[in-house]
Amino acid sequence: MDEPVRLGLLGAGRIGQTHARSIADAEDAQLAAVADPDEAAAASVVRMTGARAVSAEEVLGDPAIEGILIAAPTDLHADLVEKAAESRKAIFCEKPLDLDLARARRAVATASRCGVPLMVGFNRRFDPSFRRLRDEIDSGRIGTVELVQITSRDPAPPPMAYIERSGGLFRDMMIHDFDMARFLVGEAIVEVSATGSALIDKAIGDAGDVDTAAVTLRSAGGRLCVISNSRRAAYGYDQRIEVHGSDGMVSAGNPVATTVARAYRSGFATDPLNNFFMERYADAYRQEITAFCAVVRGGDVAYPSGHDGLAALAIADAAAQSLVTGRTVTVTRVDSVL
Amino acid sequence: MDEPVRLGLLGAGRIGQTHARSIADAEDAQLAAVADPDEAAAASVVRMTGARAVSAEEVLGDPAIEGILIAAPTDLHADLVEKAAESRKAIFCEKPLDLDLARARRAVATASRCGVPLMVGFNRRFDPSFRRLRDEIDSGRIGTVELVQITSRDPAPPPMAYIERSGGLFRDMMIHDFDMARFLVGEAIVEVSATGSALIDKAIGDAGDVDTAAVTLRSAGGRLCVISNSRRAAYGYDQRIEVHGSDGMVSAGNPVATTVARAYRSGFATDPLNNFFMERYADAYRQEITAFCAVVRGGDVAYPSGHDGLAALAIADAAAQSLVTGRTVTVTRVDSVL
Amino acid sequence: MDEPVRLGLLGAGRIGQTHARSIADAEDAQLAAVADPDEAAAASVVRMTGARAVSAEEVLGDPAIEGILIAAPTDLHADLVEKAAESRKAIFCEKPLDLDLARARRAVATASRCGVPLMVGFNRRFDPSFRRLRDEIDSGRIGTVELVQITSRDPAPPPMAYIERSGGLFRDMMIHDFDMARFLVGEAIVEVSATGSALIDKAIGDAGDVDTAAVTLRSAGGRLCVISNSRRAAYGYDQRIEVHGSDGMVSAGNPVATTVARAYRSGFATDPLNNFFMERYADAYRQEITAFCAVVRGGDVAYPSGHDGLAALAIADAAAQSLVTGRTVTVTRVDSVL
Amino acid sequence: MDEPVRLGLLGAGRIGQTHARSIADAEDAQLAAVADPDEAAAASVVRMTGARAVSAEEVLGDPAIEGILIAAPTDLHADLVEKAAESRKAIFCEKPLDLDLARARRAVATASRCGVPLMVGFNRRFDPSFRRLRDEIDSGRIGTVELVQITSRDPAPPPMAYIERSGGLFRDMMIHDFDMARFLVGEAIVEVSATGSALIDKAIGDAGDVDTAAVTLRSAGGRLCVISNSRRAAYGYDQRIEVHGSDGMVSAGNPVATTVARAYRSGFATDPLNNFFMERYADAYRQEITAFCAVVRGGDVAYPSGHDGLAALAIADAAAQSLVTGRTVTVTRVDSVL
Repeated sequence: MDEPVRLGLLGAGRIGQTHARSIADAEDAQLAAVADPDEAAAASVVRMTGARAVSAEEVLGDPAIEGILIAAPTDLHADLVEKAAESRKAIFCEKPLDLDLARARRAVATASRCGVPLMVGFNRRFDPSFRRLRDEIDSGRIGTVELVQITSRDPAPPPMAYIERSGGLFRDMMIHDFDMARFLVGEAIVEVSATGSALIDKAIGDAGDVDTAAVTLRSAGGRLCVISNSRRAAYGYDQRIEVHGSDGMVSAGNPVATTVARAYRSGFATDPLNNFFMERYADAYRQEITAFCAVVRGGDVAYPSGHDGLAALAIADAAAQSLVTGRTVTVTRVDSVL
Repeated sequence: MDEPVRLGLLGAGRIGQTHARSIADAEDAQLAAVADPDEAAAASVVRMTGARAVSAEEVLGDPAIEGILIAAPTDLHADLVEKAAESRKAIFCEKPLDLDLARARRAVATASRCGVPLMVGFNRRFDPSFRRLRDEIDSGRIGTVELVQITSRDPAPPPMAYIERSGGLFRDMMIHDFDMARFLVGEAIVEVSATGSALIDKAIGDAGDVDTAAVTLRSAGGRLCVISNSRRAAYGYDQRIEVHGSDGMVSAGNPVATTVARAYRSGFATDPLNNFFMERYADAYRQEITAFCAVVRGGDVAYPSGHDGLAALAIADAAAQSLVTGRTVTVTRVDSVL
Repeated sequence: MDEPVRLGLLGAGRIGQTHARSIADAEDAQLAAVADPDEAAAASVVRMTGARAVSAEEVLGDPAIEGILIAAPTDLHADLVEKAAESRKAIFCEKPLDLDLARARRAVATASRCGVPLMVGFNRRFDPSFRRLRDEIDSGRIGTVELVQITSRDPAPPPMAYIERSGGLFRDMMIHDFDMARFLVGEAIVEVSATGSALIDKAIGDAGDVDTAAVTLRSAGGRLCVISNSRRAAYGYDQRIEVHGSDGMVSAGNPVATTVARAYRSGFATDPLNNFFMERYADAYRQEITAFCAVVRGGDVAYPSGHDGLAALAIADAAAQSLVTGRTVTVTRVDSVL
Repeated sequence: MDEPVRLGLLGAGRIGQTHARSIADAEDAQLAAVADPDEAAAASVVRMTGARAVSAEEVLGDPAIEGILIAAPTDLHADLVEKAAESRKAIFCEKPLDLDLARARRAVATASRCGVPLMVGFNRRFDPSFRRLRDEIDSGRIGTVELVQITSRDPAPPPMAYIERSGGLFRDMMIHDFDMARFLVGEAIVEVSATGSALIDKAIGDAGDVDTAAVTLRSAGGRLCVISNSRRAAYGYDQRIEVHGSDGMVSAGNPVATTVARAYRSGFATDPLNNFFMERYADAYRQEITAFCAVVRGGDVAYPSGHDGLAALAIADAAAQSLVTGRTVTVTRVDSVL
């Protein structure tokens, strides 16, 4: 058996701890060091993994560390990507790379110039059901993709403080769906048309954001993608995708915690869905780390790249602009300046 | 028991024959007369119902006839509505009233002036599952409606000759979904944004039409409706609706011919969907005629009115314009001139 | 088009009226006459079909009538079968032929001697889903049948007065499942083992009957069939079958009235099942009459015969005996004396 | 946080390794030692957990070890239970305790006399869906239990060498269902009636065993349980339960690996089930070890006890006898001599 991949973690909050746990469970990976200004958070990762708690500089400067996971606050992502790239380490960065496309682009360019792989945390690509959609498309059995429908609904809106710094629903929440659209449509997305409302909480509207939105994407070859998002779903975390092709359809729904069904005089009943995305995507988070370990080892593995991060962000920008202007907006080509 | 309602039928083609059969099955209705220039078609209705085969003028002039069903070609609808209105008969007219909104408006105005009820053939409102969606909304159990998702896919495109005279996908096919949106959203639709492509048949694109389309509607209060249409679905006639509210969701799917499931080494399998809309909506067509009989009797029954016909057509017009301009289009208020 | 088949109906109660309605709807059948001592019941059939209301003797003696439907009380079935047979008419008789196997056997022998077809009212064979199970078996796709599981549950027990004259759960209710087992297992049933309890109503037990029962059948080649019955199911009329073969499985479940699903904070909900067997089997009753019309015409059509009626009754007798003795009981061969 | 529970493992085969992995994943448990004559097997557990590989005697004699897991071959179970009991350690023993009821009884009596808890490896009680069935029953929402239906089908029969030493289908495979019946019926099982055949492999029949079986159980209060088993299911590992009560029903089905559905011209398709019971019950195996850790700590936790192991075995004995005699057999009371 090979030596385990040695990794460093920047940021030990909720998502950082999730990645730490995945690393602890992985057979061929070891978390060598963790950095977080919140000592309690770092300590919790130390207990889980045996990693050293050090400063971010030490993590980046440790020559034994081969890969860096960036799970720090969003506004630090781009800087840390560039520092990790200059340290010549493979990089996993949580989405989004940055809320500003130009800034994100420079970070990606730096990684590219330094010749290090940059993987972006679009965890849904690693969900077994969504991954399988792509395999089915690749198999050719549904023919040419014509229309993709994505439904994403959160159980409840995050706090206003979060929303105000989120970059808006398109950059914060629907960006996952934009990436899925790119992953499944199979052609570059060229046009975006967006509609949205603040129906759940007036404060969200007052902050210039929406909580309910519908967006239509159009690819270079005229393929369509329809995405609907809501910050609220009484029955739980709802994430479904349908891919319609010339010869058939393939869909993925919501996993259930048990297979129990009840039947009473009033009818049949089953449980609500998961209420938390980290449970919903538990498998995906694990698979994501497995993929990153393979990336660090230089394996031939598909992963969402820095370019994918930019492309999804460019679609989010176009959606935000379309919402304001009431026009179909052409998506900026993210490779034009790289 | 009351005397049966006496009805006259103008047009004995496929849909006319369907209505004739529903009248024959209804306990309280009688088809007194049928008119169709195609003698064989008329004769087939005669055999089924015992109706007299006469001219359209005789049907309209028969004082014993209380209600007229118009199932003639679309370009005759508006004229026949006006003649039936002037004969002071209750009217059922197949959709669309006319492909031209202004012409349709005059017909509706005539019916209104003559004081006769005018029911439009939006049969889906009578589908037991879709009807039930509305009942669930009315019950208040899902709270305030926020987002409606409608998927409509035909098994295969109609002949080009049909498409060329159809008024385009929005006026011919999606118009049913526009009516459903109005039926379920519960507020006036004020803005439309449309995208579409000709992916199935290049000839459809050459004829200036699309075969795959996605449209977003926005109501006066900011509620959203997303509609996707395709002229092709390998697995059969696919018609589904989801209504998302502040407290929950209610959905309706596709009925199945049998409940049979098979399980082999390769997995589980069930049958494709119905391949024909007249099977799919067989119940709805029957209920529609039952409702029209009640309308003729002056009963207090909900039905899609002439105004509903105009409103759906106005949305279709806006969608067609949005497709061309790439802009969100404001829907013409159809009651403004009546 | 052929002349319609002319039929006579003996018995105009609930099931007789159902058959009358099916005849009225059939394109190639006409109900010429109906007999029932209850004049109001007969009159209701007359209104529905235009049949003459006459005496049973007149129905049987009318030379223009080609087929007789026997829907009289069970204790008259065997006599009426014999009289109809001697009048040389094709016979449809509701199940059971008689509660006494020997009596039923004589009636079947009479029909056989007179050379008239005798169809028994095992309507479930005509249910589209159950019919399809048989087609799947015949296709060979699930290989050799090894195990059949049948679940039958009524919404609520019938009145005690009915139960007391019913011949017991095995002869009254499970007899349908015995026929299904024979229809699907594909081999003669040779052994029966029965268990049962009166759990719903002590009075049922006091009357010497059970309301909850489980029976295992074994075919000549060792194939198994498991049947469970209950006179009560809070969630509605529950009828399901699974057929397991060497290469796979095929199952049929309960049809639903609508496809509507609701989702709330408490979870997902759908409607209870039908509460009435005549709704549940509406299609089957129609198909049954269509098949009988074909039988009368001498068509090459599969139907449950007098022999099938005897065979199911023989299994019911064996089950009743097994319940009392606690032993596996060998089924009487019903063809041994014919 | 408490000190971890220290455990010893006797037997490092397939199921032993599964338990070792669960212990490694558990937060509050530590595998201190493992014993297996197969050194490679023991070494693999050592790598996984850091346990010492020692002799069984050393495991049993180690005063630091609080709980023993017995995953050795079946014919050693009873001896090891007694030795562990005499070492005053809490015991987890894989099912069956022994193929011979009297021998198993003595082992249980020894554990009882020594005052140590004895948990038997009926892992299905820990499956989240089956566990939930019991919770639903306990909630009272389905009223009084009247009928339980259990379907268990393996993908393919084990090798003949295994079958010959298995004690037969009832003691080896259906014993899990007998335990489930006891867990869910809520009353003592008093009578058993069994039918079975060797339909899959003639060699199984030649060895005096069956591969397809149907068994009916009856409780003290007349409640029924129907169990069907097959050693073969083309479509995968099939394990389903329905519990019918006076006020409703609760059921548990098969978990699926993904939620992906495909739709083609030929219809809808989903994947086959898991092909391996260790995947199917992965969650259950983990929960089982968590429960055993709680048992070792003396926590107030429900678990399948030695008495449960005996009771299931007594039902299996009765089933085997019923199969041979064709009679309903009264179940031996296992507590009569303890």
